[in-house]
Amino acid sequence: MSASWPLQRIGVVHSPYADKFGVPRQPGLAPTVEATLELLPPYNRPEAVRGLEGFSHLWLIFAFHQTAAAGWQPTVRPPRLGGNRRVGVFATRATHRPNPLGLSVVELIGIDCQGGVRLRLRGADLVDGTPVLDIKPYIPFVDSRPHARTGFIDGPPPCLPVQFAPQLVEQLAEQPALRQAIVEVLQQDPRPAYAAISARRYGVRLYQYDVRFERCAEHILVHELVALP
Amino acid sequence: MSASWPLQRIGVVHSPYADKFGVPRQPGLAPTVEATLELLPPYNRPEAVRGLEGFSHLWLIFAFHQTAAAGWQPTVRPPRLGGNRRVGVFATRATHRPNPLGLSVVELIGIDCQGGVRLRLRGADLVDGTPVLDIKPYIPFVDSRPHARTGFIDGPPPCLPVQFAPQLVEQLAEQPALRQAIVEVLQQDPRPAYAAISARRYGVRLYQYDVRFERCAEHILVHELVALP
Repeated sequence: MSASWPLQRIGVVHSPYADKFGVPRQPGLAPTVEATLELLPPYNRPEAVRGLEGFSHLWLIFAFHQTAAAGWQPTVRPPRLGGNRRVGVFATRATHRPNPLGLSVVELIGIDCQGGVRLRLRGADLVDGTPVLDIKPYIPFVDSRPHARTGFIDGPPPCLPVQFAPQLVEQLAEQPALRQAIVEVLQQDPRPAYAAISARRYGVRLYQYDVRFERCAEHILVHELVALP
Repeated sequence: MSASWPLQRIGVVHSPYADKFGVPRQPGLAPTVEATLELLPPYNRPEAVRGLEGFSHLWLIFAFHQTAAAGWQPTVRPPRLGGNRRVGVFATRATHRPNPLGLSVVELIGIDCQGGVRLRLRGADLVDGTPVLDIKPYIPFVDSRPHARTGFIDGPPPCLPVQFAPQLVEQLAEQPALRQAIVEVLQQDPRPAYAAISARRYGVRLYQYDVRFERCAEHILVHELVALP
């Protein structure tokens, strides 16, 4: 038995999340945002996903590639605890882990087998370029434990109202999917848990825009969309 | 970005399943059987699991170490389909995968931090010696999708009645936990899906016994328990 497993990526995610900042902290929190998982050779063969179309949800095991080189600490400060209390790394889904493995359930909305294999997904919490190591079908009688007891996590994070500056309202009326994606991403307040409420502006790169926003006392205010070069 | 991730085991499973044959095909199918996850240095520090005690269920990502060297095929024949229909490997939880990663939800019943870290688990489908790569808390609002649609998997596998030879009935009356474990393991008929019903006897190594059984037309008959050396 080897004590080390050299894993290869089987695919790569294409998502509208250009940066780690802004990626939902769990899958399903931005449920309408679509992403694509492109399988890579030699795994991009239609027969490798035969039968997968019958499942509405999938597990992805992926690598936290952006933070893998940073190593791990025995304890972390999860956003859920305000970023100021430490719990064990294995009691969290934090990215800095002994093995930089992530696990997410995503919705499967289609499979394209023209010239390779691409899975169309919804609700992924994956930054663009994420390497995927495995795909498994979601099986409710195996995987669903709706009454599992949780520790310091008592439900989905609260959502803030998202408001748009006047000049954006008209623009986004013609792009309802983009508007909805911005709402789903920003309503969770992607800023660090310890960040104060201030007039400072932040930017989330989403699709082809730098979405500039401010955290107000009771809501998120979107100021402008700056087209990315 | 590296295209390969050398993963190290963070712990090892001690379970009553000495062989792959007899291990439940999914977690939770033998719900009362206990196992232990022993964390290994440098990960066996109590602070690395601080807060985990609040969660009733955990995810384990582990290596299919016994079959890792055998490679993968694009299609497999899942037991669920009688072992004679092929579906894509990514549409199954089969062990022979491009990356030999397994994923199981288990029940956490206790944490022992005396001289290391040991997690007491129930319902694991893991062979003794399984290397574990990651532990994550189970979070229902993230992980539970009770209404997810499945393809060729329509629910838990059927269970057969398990009967015991007369000389075993008295012996097992004094070992109810062992008896229950035998029932939970054998009621799923661990034989290959394509195996015919015959008078052939099979053996499952469970705890300190080779459990000898026969698949009858409508039930499983346990003939004897042979003590392992």
